[in-house]
Amino acid sequence: MSDRETVDPAPESDARPPPSGTEPVLPAADAPSDPPLPAVVPPVLRDDDGRLTGAFLAAVRGTIEAADAAGLAALVGDLHEADLGEIIGALDADERPLLVGLLGDAFDFSTLVELDESVRVQLIEDLPPATVAEGVRDLDSDDAVYILEDLDEAAQDAILDTFPAAERLSLERSLDFPEESAGRLMQTEFIAVAPTWTVGQVIDYCRETEDLPEDFYEIHVVDPGFRLLGTVALDRILRAKRMQAVGEIVDEDRRTARATDDREDVARIFERYNLISLPVIDDEDRLIGVITADDVVDVVMEEAEEDLRALAGVGDEEISDTVWYTTRNRFLWLLVNLFTAFLAAGVIGLFEDTIAKIVALAALAPIVAGQGGNAATQTMTVAVRAIATREVGRFNIARFVNREIMVSFLNGAAFALLVGLAVWGWYGERQLGAVIGGAMIVNLIAGGLAGVAIPLAVDKLNGDPAVISGVFVTTVTDCVGFFAVLGLATWWYGIV
Amino acid sequence: MSDRETVDPAPESDARPPPSGTEPVLPAADAPSDPPLPAVVPPVLRDDDGRLTGAFLAAVRGTIEAADAAGLAALVGDLHEADLGEIIGALDADERPLLVGLLGDAFDFSTLVELDESVRVQLIEDLPPATVAEGVRDLDSDDAVYILEDLDEAAQDAILDTFPAAERLSLERSLDFPEESAGRLMQTEFIAVAPTWTVGQVIDYCRETEDLPEDFYEIHVVDPGFRLLGTVALDRILRAKRMQAVGEIVDEDRRTARATDDREDVARIFERYNLISLPVIDDEDRLIGVITADDVVDVVMEEAEEDLRALAGVGDEEISDTVWYTTRNRFLWLLVNLFTAFLAAGVIGLFEDTIAKIVALAALAPIVAGQGGNAATQTMTVAVRAIATREVGRFNIARFVNREIMVSFLNGAAFALLVGLAVWGWYGERQLGAVIGGAMIVNLIAGGLAGVAIPLAVDKLNGDPAVISGVFVTTVTDCVGFFAVLGLATWWYGIV
Repeated sequence: MSDRETVDPAPESDARPPPSGTEPVLPAADAPSDPPLPAVVPPVLRDDDGRLTGAFLAAVRGTIEAADAAGLAALVGDLHEADLGEIIGALDADERPLLVGLLGDAFDFSTLVELDESVRVQLIEDLPPATVAEGVRDLDSDDAVYILEDLDEAAQDAILDTFPAAERLSLERSLDFPEESAGRLMQTEFIAVAPTWTVGQVIDYCRETEDLPEDFYEIHVVDPGFRLLGTVALDRILRAKRMQAVGEIVDEDRRTARATDDREDVARIFERYNLISLPVIDDEDRLIGVITADDVVDVVMEEAEEDLRALAGVGDEEISDTVWYTTRNRFLWLLVNLFTAFLAAGVIGLFEDTIAKIVALAALAPIVAGQGGNAATQTMTVAVRAIATREVGRFNIARFVNREIMVSFLNGAAFALLVGLAVWGWYGERQLGAVIGGAMIVNLIAGGLAGVAIPLAVDKLNGDPAVISGVFVTTVTDCVGFFAVLGLATWWYGIV
Repeated sequence: MSDRETVDPAPESDARPPPSGTEPVLPAADAPSDPPLPAVVPPVLRDDDGRLTGAFLAAVRGTIEAADAAGLAALVGDLHEADLGEIIGALDADERPLLVGLLGDAFDFSTLVELDESVRVQLIEDLPPATVAEGVRDLDSDDAVYILEDLDEAAQDAILDTFPAAERLSLERSLDFPEESAGRLMQTEFIAVAPTWTVGQVIDYCRETEDLPEDFYEIHVVDPGFRLLGTVALDRILRAKRMQAVGEIVDEDRRTARATDDREDVARIFERYNLISLPVIDDEDRLIGVITADDVVDVVMEEAEEDLRALAGVGDEEISDTVWYTTRNRFLWLLVNLFTAFLAAGVIGLFEDTIAKIVALAALAPIVAGQGGNAATQTMTVAVRAIATREVGRFNIARFVNREIMVSFLNGAAFALLVGLAVWGWYGERQLGAVIGGAMIVNLIAGGLAGVAIPLAVDKLNGDPAVISGVFVTTVTDCVGFFAVLGLATWWYGIV
């Protein structure tokens, strides 16, 4: 399958979309001097699971190695930028600028938006600055900002210097908004009209204006001071008579975002109110941009993933990051956890005499500590997500905490019984079973309390519960678990 | 703040949107026989963090207790269904049907879509069947399916029996598609025209047809057999001249979903190609529905959360689930983990003689096991997400596995050194430091291997890596960790 001559009898529609309205590309059969080539059917782009195929990648590599611009264009020229982006990510670092160079003007710089950050930054460094500046100039403002924001200031200025003054100012304003804010996410191209305009005027305006936003879903209605009065979805425009004023069909009940709002809040508004697009206003309520759902789908995914990654201690790494960066990134979290492990070891160290007398405790205590950690992680995960999605607030915090404590108690009791009986059966010592069972219920309740209280406390102190709760929670369950087992045993067996 | 007479000088725009084009509701001041009431400003709906306020909830409760239909309508009648849904979720179970009853015809059943499943099912049971049937009949097909799919067949039939035959058939067809499929997610209302239609005809059709879909973003172009030829975004319609045929401006390069596709695949297509809406086709390529981005934002969030919850062993529970359901749900995962903990305890049990001679090992071995577990969890989390997002495939699997092993080796070496020196310093025994350090690097490499190999293997066997990888991975790091520490010590100190 790694042969690009492979003839696939059923070319996938995704793999070879017919040419759309994008930039024309050089057709492969454009070399009139050569004898007619045999018809080449390129390998399929993706397998049934939606993964890139090695065969397609090998074909791309082949054209890059042969510096075969026409062959490369025939292969990837019609691809969606998301697919091309994934191919670029799968290539080696030195092949990437070659691909962009071979495609020339046919390379759409919005492809860069689809790349992992480390790949994008490296590729931009490797390309001629003039090529980058020209490519970025053709983009919508939100894509341009997305690409520029990762570059250092000198590189940003070098690109922005080649822009017309108005565009430059608009991009600089977007870049002035905080990272991960609505202002960074919005596009500044939109259509705004006065409420006195008629539907006919709007349609005529759209027909006659060359420089409309690339895609739009709503018309915005503003007052003379450019303050947002409301929006009209395009389907409302289509339904209305030509003579109707947009002021009459405007939807005034519109959510808006401030440019300084965090993008996580923006994503939550989209999710809660099922929006397709959201106007962005400045501090004086003036309309300055629009965020669309297609951009937010990515944010929603990233934000939900951020909690997952934070809980596991892998931060914002991407699979294209270097070994060295990844190692450092993970080292820190492991180091913090190591301190807490030593703390737990210190607790065990207090009871060396007990362990020397009842060696079985060395095998049994980790069961109690581990089970507490697992139960606490369940509670903590639910709490972290409930906080992140704003499902928990003062109005229901008591109900939530009660529920978690009840669940911890019930599971604690169940496992106390189960483990107590198992230990009794295994070692034939009822007293040892009682010690382990007693410690189990104590630790599961402690874990449940910690699992719900620590994320809430971290949130109260304006920290990110996903990032730091885990360390504290397992510290609690480790220390309480070991202390409960060994302390109970010491007391019950009368060891001093 | 729990007094609804509270006068808030700065009413939030979210809290009191001006009346929009939704159902008219009874204004509160509609009782002409009473003397004029003092102007009542309701409390704000949400605090600055976007959480519901207790004051608003108390005000709603007050009107429900007083059976004050007009007061309740004044308070929540203009709210977005997402906000009303959240309020219903925050009420007690017995207050919910009272609220729906008091609102009467003003209650929009699309609010039910915003509720947690357990709340929705219970509320539908508590409402008069005729009310439910009437409410569901007014909904878009995707919302109706969403509500019906959780009910048992008898309840579904009771509602569907009250529908006109055509609508009933269409809903039944949607419900026949597998759970979590594109067919369940789509709405069956859409606009499809022949390619010979002109832009003017489309606009006139929209102006003259009463029964258009509630919101739409694209016109679909189909052949006489209703096979999809492509789509035209509404902004393309607005830009085009009246006389232009839609066949000339149609975008044929369109992604589609099959009705039987998993909704996770649908979400990935939206995310990858930045779509606003996606046509759904049947096995004969006929257009049968449309999925829009606003529905997918929820799916994307749920799917990313599913992995997070699966890794933590909390499944699909919602914070509104009962204590009993939650306890059972979590118990199973804890039980599986308990077995693996006993496995690790068995490993420790093999070395009781060694521990009896060197009690410090009882404190130190858990450090090695725990650190390995944490490092393996990092690797596993990255692997699980890379598999879920299709970032890892045959084309780059070797690069990915290599990277993870290198990272594990580097962090293993770092922590071997660190912990070895710490133990030497703590106990003053170089040999003990060497044992712990050696075991550490062994366990971190084993953990890295398990963290990447197990999710890949589970995926290969068509399991869900997020659900079962965690148990296996920590089993490996626990057993290897304890075995390495105690085995090395036994061998080095010559204990037999």
